[in-house]
Amino acid sequence: MALDQKIIEEFERIVGKDNVSTSPAVLYTYGFDASIYHNDPEVVIQPTSTEQVSEIMKIAYANGIPVVPRGAGTGLCGAAVPIEGGICLAMQKMNRILEISVKDLWVDVEAGVVYNDLNAELAKHGFFFPPSPGSAEACQVGGMVATNASGMRAVKYGATRDYVLGLTFVRANGDIVRCGTRTIKDASGYQLARLMCGSEGTLGVITEITFKLTTKPKKSASALIAFNSVVDAGKCISAIIAKPLIPASCELMDSTSIEAVNKARGNPLPDANALIIVEVDGETDEIIQRDLKIVEEVAKEQNATTVTPSLDPKVIAKWNDARKSVLASLSALKPGYSCVSLADDMGVPISKVPEAVERFQAITRKYNVIVAVYGHASDGNLHTKMLLKVGDKDEWDRGIAAVDEIFKASVELGGTVTGEHGVGISKALNFQEERKTELDCILAIKQAMDPKNILNPGKAAQWRGSPLRNLRYPCKEYM
Amino acid sequence: MALDQKIIEEFERIVGKDNVSTSPAVLYTYGFDASIYHNDPEVVIQPTSTEQVSEIMKIAYANGIPVVPRGAGTGLCGAAVPIEGGICLAMQKMNRILEISVKDLWVDVEAGVVYNDLNAELAKHGFFFPPSPGSAEACQVGGMVATNASGMRAVKYGATRDYVLGLTFVRANGDIVRCGTRTIKDASGYQLARLMCGSEGTLGVITEITFKLTTKPKKSASALIAFNSVVDAGKCISAIIAKPLIPASCELMDSTSIEAVNKARGNPLPDANALIIVEVDGETDEIIQRDLKIVEEVAKEQNATTVTPSLDPKVIAKWNDARKSVLASLSALKPGYSCVSLADDMGVPISKVPEAVERFQAITRKYNVIVAVYGHASDGNLHTKMLLKVGDKDEWDRGIAAVDEIFKASVELGGTVTGEHGVGISKALNFQEERKTELDCILAIKQAMDPKNILNPGKAAQWRGSPLRNLRYPCKEYM
Repeated sequence: MALDQKIIEEFERIVGKDNVSTSPAVLYTYGFDASIYHNDPEVVIQPTSTEQVSEIMKIAYANGIPVVPRGAGTGLCGAAVPIEGGICLAMQKMNRILEISVKDLWVDVEAGVVYNDLNAELAKHGFFFPPSPGSAEACQVGGMVATNASGMRAVKYGATRDYVLGLTFVRANGDIVRCGTRTIKDASGYQLARLMCGSEGTLGVITEITFKLTTKPKKSASALIAFNSVVDAGKCISAIIAKPLIPASCELMDSTSIEAVNKARGNPLPDANALIIVEVDGETDEIIQRDLKIVEEVAKEQNATTVTPSLDPKVIAKWNDARKSVLASLSALKPGYSCVSLADDMGVPISKVPEAVERFQAITRKYNVIVAVYGHASDGNLHTKMLLKVGDKDEWDRGIAAVDEIFKASVELGGTVTGEHGVGISKALNFQEERKTELDCILAIKQAMDPKNILNPGKAAQWRGSPLRNLRYPCKEYM
Repeated sequence: MALDQKIIEEFERIVGKDNVSTSPAVLYTYGFDASIYHNDPEVVIQPTSTEQVSEIMKIAYANGIPVVPRGAGTGLCGAAVPIEGGICLAMQKMNRILEISVKDLWVDVEAGVVYNDLNAELAKHGFFFPPSPGSAEACQVGGMVATNASGMRAVKYGATRDYVLGLTFVRANGDIVRCGTRTIKDASGYQLARLMCGSEGTLGVITEITFKLTTKPKKSASALIAFNSVVDAGKCISAIIAKPLIPASCELMDSTSIEAVNKARGNPLPDANALIIVEVDGETDEIIQRDLKIVEEVAKEQNATTVTPSLDPKVIAKWNDARKSVLASLSALKPGYSCVSLADDMGVPISKVPEAVERFQAITRKYNVIVAVYGHASDGNLHTKMLLKVGDKDEWDRGIAAVDEIFKASVELGGTVTGEHGVGISKALNFQEERKTELDCILAIKQAMDPKNILNPGKAAQWRGSPLRNLRYPCKEYM
């Protein structure tokens, strides 16, 4: 059943006229995220409470209308693109930090709270929520849970899944479910709150979350280390971890990434074939000095060409800003080319980073496509971004062929097609291949939780056919 | 269909005659765990590989035979008791540490590996698997995953669920599923490996697990602190955490626990109405000295009667041994009484520990039962053990009435009926009440994963009727 005016009026009654839109400009805007895809929803609704979400879901359920929950739209794989139309449930107005219980080590938030806003509030109490995604300034915690997002600090501090004590979600039929606890421990039945992590809107609409708090170390320092090759850089990271020394973060950039940043941002980085920025943290100066020294020694043993340790927050901020600007800088690297999210987020065992990068480079040469490699190398999470002439079908065809091989290489190395961005559309086929023994269980659970298949339908385990359709770029064959 | 000789012979063909037993003595032994329940299985099978488990499950599935996986049988709630007979799948022969990949931060183990054995091996490389359950010397990691077990270190290091990167399980129909990854990050689809944590054998048979490794801090120290009341002790713990200072562990004992230990073990503890043992850890002496000083200051502000900090491993070991002996000591406290696991494992928000203990004490006075309170107070996890004349129906009736109120009080305080032991039988009814909004989802997932209901059937969400039946104690009305 299509979305007729009577249903729209029901939505307006629930959330108010201001929070329902069918304006073409609005539908267009909510038709894409940061991925390569686009498809308009039929209506955009901005609920302000769990109860409103429940009322909306009851109508959607009764009428078989697809519903796609959406955070800030910073996702890179199309999970928030309403590929079958229907309702876009935009969560940004549910943005309250409900309660911080310092003495109980938890915080209750609504799904639309922005990650950096939450951390600004937690910092007042000496705590933080560590995952640190690249989109920290914009992304919402509900989207982080839905994609099990992480970022720079996962090797030491874990991903979003490790901080979810409990959450509230609305089922397909409108039932409100509170799962998990506000206690540190929980052995009461199935870990539904953890199951919702990474479910990408396919099992329910997450409306509120209880995160566990953790203390922020008082001191940190970094070292910028240059190498003659990405392979050397990767070997150095494994050697640091095997000490064992688990860094707070360790960011990698290849020559294409470095070149792009230096060109776009006025040379903030030294010229090198590969760079890593290793961050160490701890409670005292003594610890970070000790750990910086270990990092320096290992780097020299592992053929670093230069090692620059720093305790200066300004210097470290310059390095980190440069690293964070890779994605934006890449699009300016080559006139006529755009930077697109294809094969953007492979995770491999840490020690396989060098081999993975070598294989990715061989594959991109084979298909004659330009790929930059960067990412969170201390947890084996490699981002590759491709530069394509986005109007050219042949470029997309070569690109997607390269991507398929990159994914297969990652899985062969014991890795996964997505470490932190999620499956969505762009990784769906390779995800299905990677997780073939899990697929029956995934589909059975999806069917059990969403029998009418209205929650973000057609994505991930349900995707069929080529990932090259509904592109938001002007390539007429694939739009 | 019952277990006839032909089926037994099929099992013998799969695992060898030595690994199949229908001897009454063996069946009796495997008919109970450390809970209050007993029911014989019809056969005990000890598989030695995932493939064998798969073959066994295919036969069980075809014939509708109940299957209960079992680790070391240290569980306290009856999760491993084969309440509907059938097959006991005893995992102790799958006890190999398959691979430790230090540079990739993971270890692959079979489900039957003993917790302490794993940590002994990890310690050689500077790593550890932190959860530290009370049954560390015996319990198996498969059981720990199946119950999402934890112990003393959860407030700082999390529970078992936080260390499971991936695992292999066998479905009801015999299909072998490998879920999760061997990478630090994983955003690929549903977190099935986390869903299996706490599933207590109802969704599949866990055969192999990949745990994340973490480094063990180089230094630790403890303080033994005495109070005039458990309420004062509880307030002190909250005040330490609110500093913020997250201790490595913080164990609480009430006067009954202290008395029991001192009587059974020759007075290792000072006489007090309540004691806490606070452990701090870190990388340097400076840090642990700093943190010990904070603990000492807070304790004095919070009306501690004595504070004894110590860096001496022998002194600390004496305190910890005394704490660990509470359960064993309680049974010797009062002639004619046994210590039984009733309401043994409530989790409350940390700041609610004082109120919880006060309410538990009021309830036990009301029902005239003897209860000792101890546990992992820094994560709000309280163990209460009851002393009962186990042959006396009236004692059980008063006990179970008190337990019901203790559970309800815990949930009213924002807590859960089980923090680390699991639901099994003894907490099933109160769990169903606590998780009433989750229950439909739990049953739908159970149905999706185990359509013939052969995996540990009748437990937790499926339990109906009184928890007082199939007792392993000589109380004829409830045996």
